[in-house]
Amino acid sequence: MHKNKTYTLAALAKTLDLKLDGEPEHEVSGIATLASAAADQLSFYHNSKFFADLKTTRAGAVIISADCARDCPGNKLICENPYLAYAHASHLFAAGDADSRLIHPTAQIHESAVIGSNVGIGANVVIGENVHIGNDSCVGANTVIGSNCRLGKGLSLHAGVTLYAGVSIGDRAVIHSGVVIGSDGFGFARDGEKSVKIAQLGGVQVGDDVEIGACTTIDRGALEDTVIEDGVKIDNQVQIAHNVRVGENTIICGCSAIAGSSTIGKNCIIAGAVGIINHVHITDGVTVTAMSLVNKSITTQGVYSSGTGLSESAQWKKNIVHFKKLDDMAGRLKALEKRDEET
Amino acid sequence: MHKNKTYTLAALAKTLDLKLDGEPEHEVSGIATLASAAADQLSFYHNSKFFADLKTTRAGAVIISADCARDCPGNKLICENPYLAYAHASHLFAAGDADSRLIHPTAQIHESAVIGSNVGIGANVVIGENVHIGNDSCVGANTVIGSNCRLGKGLSLHAGVTLYAGVSIGDRAVIHSGVVIGSDGFGFARDGEKSVKIAQLGGVQVGDDVEIGACTTIDRGALEDTVIEDGVKIDNQVQIAHNVRVGENTIICGCSAIAGSSTIGKNCIIAGAVGIINHVHITDGVTVTAMSLVNKSITTQGVYSSGTGLSESAQWKKNIVHFKKLDDMAGRLKALEKRDEET
Amino acid sequence: MHKNKTYTLAALAKTLDLKLDGEPEHEVSGIATLASAAADQLSFYHNSKFFADLKTTRAGAVIISADCARDCPGNKLICENPYLAYAHASHLFAAGDADSRLIHPTAQIHESAVIGSNVGIGANVVIGENVHIGNDSCVGANTVIGSNCRLGKGLSLHAGVTLYAGVSIGDRAVIHSGVVIGSDGFGFARDGEKSVKIAQLGGVQVGDDVEIGACTTIDRGALEDTVIEDGVKIDNQVQIAHNVRVGENTIICGCSAIAGSSTIGKNCIIAGAVGIINHVHITDGVTVTAMSLVNKSITTQGVYSSGTGLSESAQWKKNIVHFKKLDDMAGRLKALEKRDEET
Repeated sequence: MHKNKTYTLAALAKTLDLKLDGEPEHEVSGIATLASAAADQLSFYHNSKFFADLKTTRAGAVIISADCARDCPGNKLICENPYLAYAHASHLFAAGDADSRLIHPTAQIHESAVIGSNVGIGANVVIGENVHIGNDSCVGANTVIGSNCRLGKGLSLHAGVTLYAGVSIGDRAVIHSGVVIGSDGFGFARDGEKSVKIAQLGGVQVGDDVEIGACTTIDRGALEDTVIEDGVKIDNQVQIAHNVRVGENTIICGCSAIAGSSTIGKNCIIAGAVGIINHVHITDGVTVTAMSLVNKSITTQGVYSSGTGLSESAQWKKNIVHFKKLDDMAGRLKALEKRDEET
Repeated sequence: MHKNKTYTLAALAKTLDLKLDGEPEHEVSGIATLASAAADQLSFYHNSKFFADLKTTRAGAVIISADCARDCPGNKLICENPYLAYAHASHLFAAGDADSRLIHPTAQIHESAVIGSNVGIGANVVIGENVHIGNDSCVGANTVIGSNCRLGKGLSLHAGVTLYAGVSIGDRAVIHSGVVIGSDGFGFARDGEKSVKIAQLGGVQVGDDVEIGACTTIDRGALEDTVIEDGVKIDNQVQIAHNVRVGENTIICGCSAIAGSSTIGKNCIIAGAVGIINHVHITDGVTVTAMSLVNKSITTQGVYSSGTGLSESAQWKKNIVHFKKLDDMAGRLKALEKRDEET
Repeated sequence: MHKNKTYTLAALAKTLDLKLDGEPEHEVSGIATLASAAADQLSFYHNSKFFADLKTTRAGAVIISADCARDCPGNKLICENPYLAYAHASHLFAAGDADSRLIHPTAQIHESAVIGSNVGIGANVVIGENVHIGNDSCVGANTVIGSNCRLGKGLSLHAGVTLYAGVSIGDRAVIHSGVVIGSDGFGFARDGEKSVKIAQLGGVQVGDDVEIGACTTIDRGALEDTVIEDGVKIDNQVQIAHNVRVGENTIICGCSAIAGSSTIGKNCIIAGAVGIINHVHITDGVTVTAMSLVNKSITTQGVYSSGTGLSESAQWKKNIVHFKKLDDMAGRLKALEKRDEET
C-alpha cells in the first residue's frame, strides 16, 4: 500500500516545519519502522525502547528530537515532538483515490439534495430528500444517507455507511464502513409483559474533526439529540445509545458500550471493551482501563478499573469460590480481630 | 426531527384514550421533556425525580396520573400509566417517509418473489428467489434478502440489512441497519490442528413484534433453527449464535453475546454487554446485570451479576493481587480460626 | 432449509470413506439430531450425553465409531471420528445457489480488474481498480472491494462485505456479511488536547482457509500489515486492531476484541467476548475462557481466565464491597497471623 510518492528531505523539512541535519536532496518514498526502513524510507524515533533500532537503522532519514539526534547514524529531521511530526508526515505518503471527486452515475440523489463543489459520490449511493453535503467531501460506494441529513465540508464517509434521517455531521469527520448513525434508541414502555416502542424523535449531532470506526453504532435521541462533540475519536464496534453526550477530544477505544443518557466529559480516554451503564456521568479527564464496567458516576479526574486480572484457570476457579463468599470471609476476619482484641 | 404534526388536546385525548383536564382546542406539535417543553409541546410526568420540573413546566399539556395532577400547573391528560401513554403518543409525532411505499426502479427483485400490497422497496435492494414479503412492509435501500426468506406484514427492514437464505421474520418486526440474520453458525470439527467447517443447515425464525438493533448478528442453526420468539426486543450489536432460543418478550440490551445452543426464557432482561456461554439455560423472568458473564444455567428467577465493581486503578491494582491469592487467604483465615478455637 | 439432496447409504459410505453396516440402497435426504431424525435422515453419535437418544433413534443411518456401533439400532456408517465425518457429510446436504456463477449486470467492475473463471458477482457489487479475483470465487450482492485487493481462488465473500484498498485474502476463505477489512487502525498523536490522525499505510493479509464471521472488523496496519494466518476461524463481531497477528489455526469466538500490535500464537482458542490489550503476546496453544481480559503476555501454554463467576445480585453486592477492600483485608489477616505467632 505504500505509494510511490517521493519527497526530498529538504521538501519534507519545509512542509513539516522540521530542521534538517543531513542531505537535502536525499529522497524518500515511504515510512517504515527504524528496524525495517530502507535508505529510501523515512522513520521516526519517539520511545527509548527502540534505542537499539535507532543505532542501527538504515532509514533514509529519522524524525527525532534534538537531544536524541546524536545517537542517530544518518539524516535527521529534528523537532520537539517526533511522534506528532510522524503523524503529519504519514499523510504525505497515503494513497489518494484518483477518481474520488466524481459523482458515479448509479448514485441515487434526491432532486432536493444540495451537494457542494468537489464532492465525490460512489456507486450505488442513495441520498435522501433535503440532504446537504459540504464542499470537498467524499461518500463511498453503497452508502445510504437518509433525508434531512446535514454533512459538513471535507468529510469522508467510507463505503457502506448508513445514516438515518436527521443526522448532522461536522467538517472533516471520517466515518468508516459499516457505521450506522441515527438508528432508533432502545426505548420501550411496558404494557404488562409486552414492550411498547417509544418513537425516537431526537436526532444525532456529530461535531467537527470526529472519526468513527467501522461498525460503530450511534442511536438517535428519544426527544433530544445524541451528541458527539468536536474532536472525539471513536474506534470500531463502539455502541453509543440514545441521548449520550461525549465531550470534546475524548477517545473511545474498540468495542466499548455506552448506555442511554450517560455523559462522558472532555479529554477522557475510554479504553477498549469498557461498559458504561445508563444515566451515569463521567467528569473531564477520566481514564477508564480496558474492559472495566462503569456502574456509577465518576466525579473526580483519575484512572478507574474493574475486573480481576488474568490467572491460570485452575487457580482462578479456586479463587472465585471464595470471591462468592467474600462477605462471609470479611465477617469471620472481623470476628477473629474482635476476639484477638478481647484476649 | 420533530415534524410539524399538530394535534388539539381534545384529539389527543380521544386518540390515546386519556382524560383531558384543560383546554380542548389547545394545539401541540411535538413532545419534549418537562424542563424544555414549550407551550406548543406535549410532555409527560412519570418519575418523582422530575417533580421540580413538573411544578415549573411550560408544556402545552402534560400526560400525568390522577394522583399527581394537582401539582401540574397547566393542561393535563390524565391516565394510569403516563409512561406508556407517552410511548403511544410518541408515534403521533414521528416522521413518516412520504414515498416509502414505492418500489424503486433499481431494486433487483427475482421474478419468483411474491411481494404483498402497499410494500415499499428502496433503491438497490436485492431480493432473491422465492422470497415472500407481506402487505404494508418496507425494505430500506441497499438491503439484501436471500432466497426463500419469508417476511411478515407491516414489518420494516431498514437500509443496509442482510438476510441470508431461509430466514423467516414475523409481522410488525423492525430490523435496523447493519443487521445480519442467517449467517453461518460458528461450527467446526477438528481434524488434527485444522478446523473443518460444518455446513449450517438450519435457518432462523424471528417472531412477531420483534425489534432488532443496528449491527446485531443472528446466526442460522446447525441442524435446527435459531429462534427469536414473539415480542423480543434486541438492542444494537448483540450477537446470537446458532441454535439459541430467546423466549417471548425478553429484552436484550446492547453488545450482549449469547453463545451456541443456549436458551433464554420469557420475560427476561439481559442488560448490556452480558456474555452467556454455550449450552446454558436461563429460566423465565431472570434479570442479568450489565457486563455479567453467565457461565452456568440459571434455574431460579431472580437478579444475577458478576464482576467487581469500579475502583480507582491504584487501589484496584492492590486488590487484584490478593484476588489472585484468595484461595490462599481463605485457607489462612480458616487456619487462624482453628487455632483460635483450640486456644 | 434442508434441500432435497438424496443419497444412498452406499454412496455416502463411498464419498465419505465410511464403513457401512446396514442397507446400501436406503436413502437419506438430510441430517438431523438423533432425537429428531426420521427414517430419511442421517444422524451422528459423538458424545455419551446423547446415549439415550442413540438407543431410540429413528434415523435412517447413524455415523458412529466402531466401539459404540452395537448400541445403535439401525443402519450404521462407521468411522474413527464421527463428529469430523458429520462435518464432511454436512456439506453434501447444503444448498447451493443455482446462479451464483454469473456476473450480475449491475455490478460495477473497474476495467483494470482481473476476474478469474467461474466467478460469481452479485448485484450492485463495486470492484475497484486493479483488483484480482481468483477462479471459482463468489462475491455477494452489494459488496464493495477497494482498489488493489487480491482475492484467492474458491473464496466466498457474502453480501454486504466491505474491503478497503490493498487487502489480500487467500484461497477458500469465507467472509460473512457486514465484515469490514482494511479500515484505518485507531492511531493518533496528541497535539495538546487534540488528536492528530496517523495515516494508516499498512494493509491486511488474510491467509488461506480462513473464515470470518458477520460484522467482524479487521483494521489495516499503521506501517506494516495486520496478518491473519492460514486456517484461522473468526466468529461474528470480533474486532482486530492494526498490526495484530493471529497465528495458524487459531479460533476466535464471537465479540472478542484484540487491541493494536498484539499477537496470538498458533492453535489458540480465544473464547467469546475476550479482551486482549495492546502490545501483548500470547504463545501457541493457549486457551482463554469467555469474557476474560488478557492484560499481560501469556508465555506458557495453558488455560487462562479472569472475572468473578456469577452470583445472585444481592450476595454479589455484599461481596464487591469487600473486593474493593481486599488489600486492607489481606493486611489485617497478616497482622492477625503475626500476633497469633507471637502469642
